[in-house]
Amino acid sequence: MSARGRGHLLGLGGVPPEEIRSLLTLARRRRDDATAALAGRVVALLFFEDSTRTKTSFAIAARRCGAGVVDLGTIGSSVSKGESLTDTARVVEAMGVAAIVVRAGQSGVAKLIAEGVSCAVLNAGDGTHEHPTQALADALALDDAWGSSGAFDFAGKRVVIVGDLAHSRVARANAACLTTLGADVVLVGPPTMAPRSLETLGARISHDFDAELVDADAVMMLRIQFERGATLASPREYRAACGLTIERAARMKPDALVMHPGPVNRGLEIDPEVADGGRSIILRQVAAGVAVRTAALEMLVGELES
Amino acid sequence: MSARGRGHLLGLGGVPPEEIRSLLTLARRRRDDATAALAGRVVALLFFEDSTRTKTSFAIAARRCGAGVVDLGTIGSSVSKGESLTDTARVVEAMGVAAIVVRAGQSGVAKLIAEGVSCAVLNAGDGTHEHPTQALADALALDDAWGSSGAFDFAGKRVVIVGDLAHSRVARANAACLTTLGADVVLVGPPTMAPRSLETLGARISHDFDAELVDADAVMMLRIQFERGATLASPREYRAACGLTIERAARMKPDALVMHPGPVNRGLEIDPEVADGGRSIILRQVAAGVAVRTAALEMLVGELES
Amino acid sequence: MSARGRGHLLGLGGVPPEEIRSLLTLARRRRDDATAALAGRVVALLFFEDSTRTKTSFAIAARRCGAGVVDLGTIGSSVSKGESLTDTARVVEAMGVAAIVVRAGQSGVAKLIAEGVSCAVLNAGDGTHEHPTQALADALALDDAWGSSGAFDFAGKRVVIVGDLAHSRVARANAACLTTLGADVVLVGPPTMAPRSLETLGARISHDFDAELVDADAVMMLRIQFERGATLASPREYRAACGLTIERAARMKPDALVMHPGPVNRGLEIDPEVADGGRSIILRQVAAGVAVRTAALEMLVGELES
Repeated sequence: MSARGRGHLLGLGGVPPEEIRSLLTLARRRRDDATAALAGRVVALLFFEDSTRTKTSFAIAARRCGAGVVDLGTIGSSVSKGESLTDTARVVEAMGVAAIVVRAGQSGVAKLIAEGVSCAVLNAGDGTHEHPTQALADALALDDAWGSSGAFDFAGKRVVIVGDLAHSRVARANAACLTTLGADVVLVGPPTMAPRSLETLGARISHDFDAELVDADAVMMLRIQFERGATLASPREYRAACGLTIERAARMKPDALVMHPGPVNRGLEIDPEVADGGRSIILRQVAAGVAVRTAALEMLVGELES
Repeated sequence: MSARGRGHLLGLGGVPPEEIRSLLTLARRRRDDATAALAGRVVALLFFEDSTRTKTSFAIAARRCGAGVVDLGTIGSSVSKGESLTDTARVVEAMGVAAIVVRAGQSGVAKLIAEGVSCAVLNAGDGTHEHPTQALADALALDDAWGSSGAFDFAGKRVVIVGDLAHSRVARANAACLTTLGADVVLVGPPTMAPRSLETLGARISHDFDAELVDADAVMMLRIQFERGATLASPREYRAACGLTIERAARMKPDALVMHPGPVNRGLEIDPEVADGGRSIILRQVAAGVAVRTAALEMLVGELES
Repeated sequence: MSARGRGHLLGLGGVPPEEIRSLLTLARRRRDDATAALAGRVVALLFFEDSTRTKTSFAIAARRCGAGVVDLGTIGSSVSKGESLTDTARVVEAMGVAAIVVRAGQSGVAKLIAEGVSCAVLNAGDGTHEHPTQALADALALDDAWGSSGAFDFAGKRVVIVGDLAHSRVARANAACLTTLGADVVLVGPPTMAPRSLETLGARISHDFDAELVDADAVMMLRIQFERGATLASPREYRAACGLTIERAARMKPDALVMHPGPVNRGLEIDPEVADGGRSIILRQVAAGVAVRTAALEMLVGELES
């Protein structure tokens, strides 16, 4: 799948549009119909970083493919016994698993592991680098809402992504995916969080949320990740500059959508009324996550075995 | 199922006898025959409080229904990231689970979650409030021993529940269930642990274990829950007043039964010889627990989907 | 299976060669073909000691038998609530599991539990006593490499096991298994780690790795178990005396094999180039582990139910 290797999904940067569309098409089908494509197979969850949501979503996706799931724990104990990441992955592969789902606090870990094994490797988030299944879920949820009927063509649509962009793998993956599908992407944050260097992502950078808001077809709010050491000098100032408040939501275009990868810091980056309001497709993003992960597992394992 | 909502099992207070009997009848059948009623579905375990026994019992029950199981961890990490309980449950539901099994240290959490989602919610113990599947398991085990052949009619039977009643969700659920099925229930404990206010449960209160013991058809000993901060000024005095010692067991009616929801503090609330003796149906309660949880999952998910 | 009880696998000492060969024969078949022998059944993992590898291997094996898996956590919480090991195991059995896989830091725990229940019990490592499935995996991997075509007859082969033998359950289990299958076993370590008392295992003791190395058909390096409190006055001296360095590997017989139960302390007991080199069958040992555990579950549960 990924430009970086057959049978792996490490990131969306550089993946051709037809591959993304083909996965999204399968994902939409898998939402209604489960598959037995991985019956009798085992999917290993190798999470070096805690994440109940993403892990649960992958576990459910694996079961919807008919696979068993082994959870190697939040931190593989073998790693704490001094084994390297690649050693651990090779051992897991030797046990006969069909796919390894990797999450890590360091960028590049999924790629490193993919280079060491020959089973399918899926990146479930690596440091500040990529989170491809989140971006695919967001694209599927957007397409549902926009009603493109499976063309997954976002030409003429503008998506504004707001928050701590510099450290966001969600923003990075979404910028790659959405621009590939034809959307205009605007990255909005205070100057420290949205440096000019992000322009390499193919998106425009802005520091003025209010100016960008009015033309957006979708606004994707990012989570302030306190659990990763993010600090805010003033939460009140952050909300004033970058929060999707009730007032701001009222100025959006009539059909414009509100998104958030979750978990939400209600009242900080987004007001609760907006997160739960009629524009919000936050829970549809969650449901789409299971669908794209099901499709990704089926497609990647299939690629390796065909 | 519960008086508090179709498709949920939150407590047994107020549930009509025919509903309890119908679930127990199905549970007895499910002990021998597994079912594929939830094949291809997923049951989520959302335990905010540690409990190996209850969690394992629900996990086995889910598999006996053909369902996959996802364990969201002892404390959902999303909750520690600042999400509310209801948010977490809604996200889990959006992932497509058929049922959420909830355990929490605070009373009312299962009800709160049930109000926020539309999948089935099963209370696996919430604070000092209720623990319905434990009480149903106890009723099934009693009926097995009493040989009522499936009528689940306990008229003329007297069950004495002994211990720290004020804080016991097991006592509360059992009082509701047993009185609904026609039994006389006597709640026994020292005055601080068995306040008069418990009479609202439909049971008689007593502080004299020795007096009640001789007329009991079953004695259910409660666990002193040290792990929840219970303290005893004098374990020796507690055992003298409320322990089911060898001596006391010898004064019970010939066919009277001994019960305990486990885990047992041997030598404190019950002597080891009594817990393992011929009157004890403690392990039968455990086996019945899997059966009632299997039946509850099948019935509740079925209610929602019919 | 084990000399210590029908339906259990507690150790390999005293198990007749035909029983070992019969399990290895089934294991070889199970590597290619999964089985539905335990469909609808549940296997419980009761690990009182952390072990991602062994637990994952058993979990995958259970699924390859068609069974569901319940993981009772690294330390069963009921045990921390004051229940005894045997109580916990009896409760788990009462829930209807087909087999309990036990790992513990104390020798003899698996046997203790086997005496308290009537379902199958498999020892996944107990203290310094035994680790039978590891030794069976090693025998299967050796037989694959030596091409005995399923006879599992190791007469004329010499296996040299090197390291902290006094505390190694892997060495103990392998000495029993390999000598039963006809191999010569030499145990090598510094005097403090390879006391004369080990001769009761049926193996020869030596303190001179360089002398033994040249005649070995396989060299099995043991892990220095820092996580269990092992200390080395001088890692450099240990490597000089007992490490399988590149230099030493070069002096081995042309077809001689290198083994390690993992996880590997690279650069200490074995050089990375040797662990990953052409002589190494370390990853084949891992794959064989899943196969022997699949076969053991199938055979033991079958023994109890026939």
